[in-house]
Amino acid sequence: MHYTLLTTDSATGARRGTIQTAHGPVETPVFMPVGTQATVKTLDPRDLHAEDCRILLANTYHLYLRPGHEIIRDLGGLHRFMGWDRAILTDSGGYQVMSLAALRRLTEEGVAFQSHLDGSRHTLTPERAVEIQLALGVDILMALDECPPHAADYAYHAASMERTLRWAARCRVAHSSDEPALFGIVQGGTFPDLRARSAEETRRIGFTGYALGGLGIGEGAAAMYAIVEDTTALLPDDAPRYLMGVGTPQDLLECIARGVDMFDCVLPTRNARNGTLFTAAGRLNIKGAVHARDERPVDPGCACYTCRHFSRAYLRHLYVADEILGLRLNTIHNLHYYLDLMRQARQAIEAGCFAAWKDTTLARLRAEPSTSQDGQETHNDV
Amino acid sequence: MHYTLLTTDSATGARRGTIQTAHGPVETPVFMPVGTQATVKTLDPRDLHAEDCRILLANTYHLYLRPGHEIIRDLGGLHRFMGWDRAILTDSGGYQVMSLAALRRLTEEGVAFQSHLDGSRHTLTPERAVEIQLALGVDILMALDECPPHAADYAYHAASMERTLRWAARCRVAHSSDEPALFGIVQGGTFPDLRARSAEETRRIGFTGYALGGLGIGEGAAAMYAIVEDTTALLPDDAPRYLMGVGTPQDLLECIARGVDMFDCVLPTRNARNGTLFTAAGRLNIKGAVHARDERPVDPGCACYTCRHFSRAYLRHLYVADEILGLRLNTIHNLHYYLDLMRQARQAIEAGCFAAWKDTTLARLRAEPSTSQDGQETHNDV
Repeated sequence: MHYTLLTTDSATGARRGTIQTAHGPVETPVFMPVGTQATVKTLDPRDLHAEDCRILLANTYHLYLRPGHEIIRDLGGLHRFMGWDRAILTDSGGYQVMSLAALRRLTEEGVAFQSHLDGSRHTLTPERAVEIQLALGVDILMALDECPPHAADYAYHAASMERTLRWAARCRVAHSSDEPALFGIVQGGTFPDLRARSAEETRRIGFTGYALGGLGIGEGAAAMYAIVEDTTALLPDDAPRYLMGVGTPQDLLECIARGVDMFDCVLPTRNARNGTLFTAAGRLNIKGAVHARDERPVDPGCACYTCRHFSRAYLRHLYVADEILGLRLNTIHNLHYYLDLMRQARQAIEAGCFAAWKDTTLARLRAEPSTSQDGQETHNDV
Repeated sequence: MHYTLLTTDSATGARRGTIQTAHGPVETPVFMPVGTQATVKTLDPRDLHAEDCRILLANTYHLYLRPGHEIIRDLGGLHRFMGWDRAILTDSGGYQVMSLAALRRLTEEGVAFQSHLDGSRHTLTPERAVEIQLALGVDILMALDECPPHAADYAYHAASMERTLRWAARCRVAHSSDEPALFGIVQGGTFPDLRARSAEETRRIGFTGYALGGLGIGEGAAAMYAIVEDTTALLPDDAPRYLMGVGTPQDLLECIARGVDMFDCVLPTRNARNGTLFTAAGRLNIKGAVHARDERPVDPGCACYTCRHFSRAYLRHLYVADEILGLRLNTIHNLHYYLDLMRQARQAIEAGCFAAWKDTTLARLRAEPSTSQDGQETHNDV
């Protein structure tokens, strides 16, 4: 994997770049749809190609448990398994172990847990996380980290961050190459000194890219933006920066302005399945009776398949009638919205007008809440 | 609507024809996928176009109750509502009223019932059935009939059939045109004399096409095939014949051989969602652990999107993981199987080798059960 920084916005920290992977180029800033169980829910690879999606996220924890990384490896790797010929990034599995698995026990060695599916016992260590992701054959691996609860105190965050650093070093020993890429993860909660130490030490270990973890989990938008701004300033210019599990359209634009290159979040796909659709003018709840006779598309300015062919009335009918096609058409629309938003952001950076474009776009969105206020699990789409 | 009989097979009763509708030509014999609630479950119109599907069936009862035929009419009709530019046939709603609705009361006037959705009270009469279907704006309407249980006695079948004839005459008065087309329905259970009288009198009323109702509901394959053979012989050559709610691949081939032109059934779509896939060698249950590491497609000889891109192992994973994409890929495969089977049947009739092709195809399928032994509701896909 090779990252090329093409432009840095003069008025903000926004960056335009390209990540060259073994499965094609990824233009940044980029939003990565979440394909937890080797599928972006309701979509097939043609749909993702139609949106010019270049990179997906898949969840190591889920695929390790089912169908199992060795089965995927034996079948030729995750790309072949799910029929996806472009880039894939996997998380380390650590976040899901802590949020989904039963009877977790965290030690210096790693984390022992029981599967949420069948109660079977497993241990995830830094070395094991790398091994599983290598077996999946993805383009970008994430180092194993601990993501403490937002409410944990300073002492917990400090000790956890130090352990995450030791785990990061073990991951780097387990996989020292840039191909596939391994990203380190900066932790430290909302404590600037912990974030600074984490960023510096993670950088000292040396990774192909750097992620910001433990954000968008309840700390609030202002705190998140401040940590993002401070942290990206401590990361190398010549490596991509990935803000994990974030966020709303507003979060994306504010964090692009603070130097983030990569995002993932379940919001567009999960909200689609809940009937909440993103538009240039804010969110729209397709369930509402007000749409029953509305022949307009969800967003008159949207070029997605759903908006080009179907009315709000039809989408509402499908939702009310529990029809799977509704979930799918909603997902197509929401992902188009997110990927198009990022396309516009890239163009604005190239054109040197990112700040003005961002202000205009956010004004039209009115009062979008921040991911960190949504209070939902945003790191895997189940 | 205009039907042209192109060829009749010399060795069997198989017919090759074309139905010209206001929404394009339909080559017969044809299988119509079931789109109960204005969607063939899990598929969008692009998927159906990809399979060269020319005509769909939708269920009047469901659309009348939700979203309501007047809403669909006001939004430009069912084609526009669901984004489908080819032909649509609707049933009359009578079958669903008798099988789904609560507190049904059948009189000479029609059938009073309560909605299975909200308990609201409605009355479906022959005139109302026509009115609703005209409001939907479909290409082929069905007359209101009663489909008695298979186990009903001779006296019940006789009286019911006579009432269905009177209802058919009232439907014809309510809609006397060929555009859109109105089909009459032959009833009479498994009693040859009742079927004969029903066929003759329905023909005397005069419809654009003729359906065989009340079959595939438990009478057994041999009885069904016998009734089909006897009944089609009494119907005009220059009108299409439609066997409602049937059936398995074997049923389709046996009934094409007995002069049927049109079929609909939920088997391919519902079975897909249950993980049962049709192949040239018979059915395959994708849930089985035997498929966990199987990199072969469902059917190596199949050209559908699913078989061209995904392994049995992936489809099994999606099924076990409750992923919607699995239901969708399975549906694409099963519908491809059905539509391709009909394409092959048409080619065989044209080539003058239908009987031999049918025997070979059935031998490869081994012992497929008949629809009438499946014991499931096959007339609407919910």
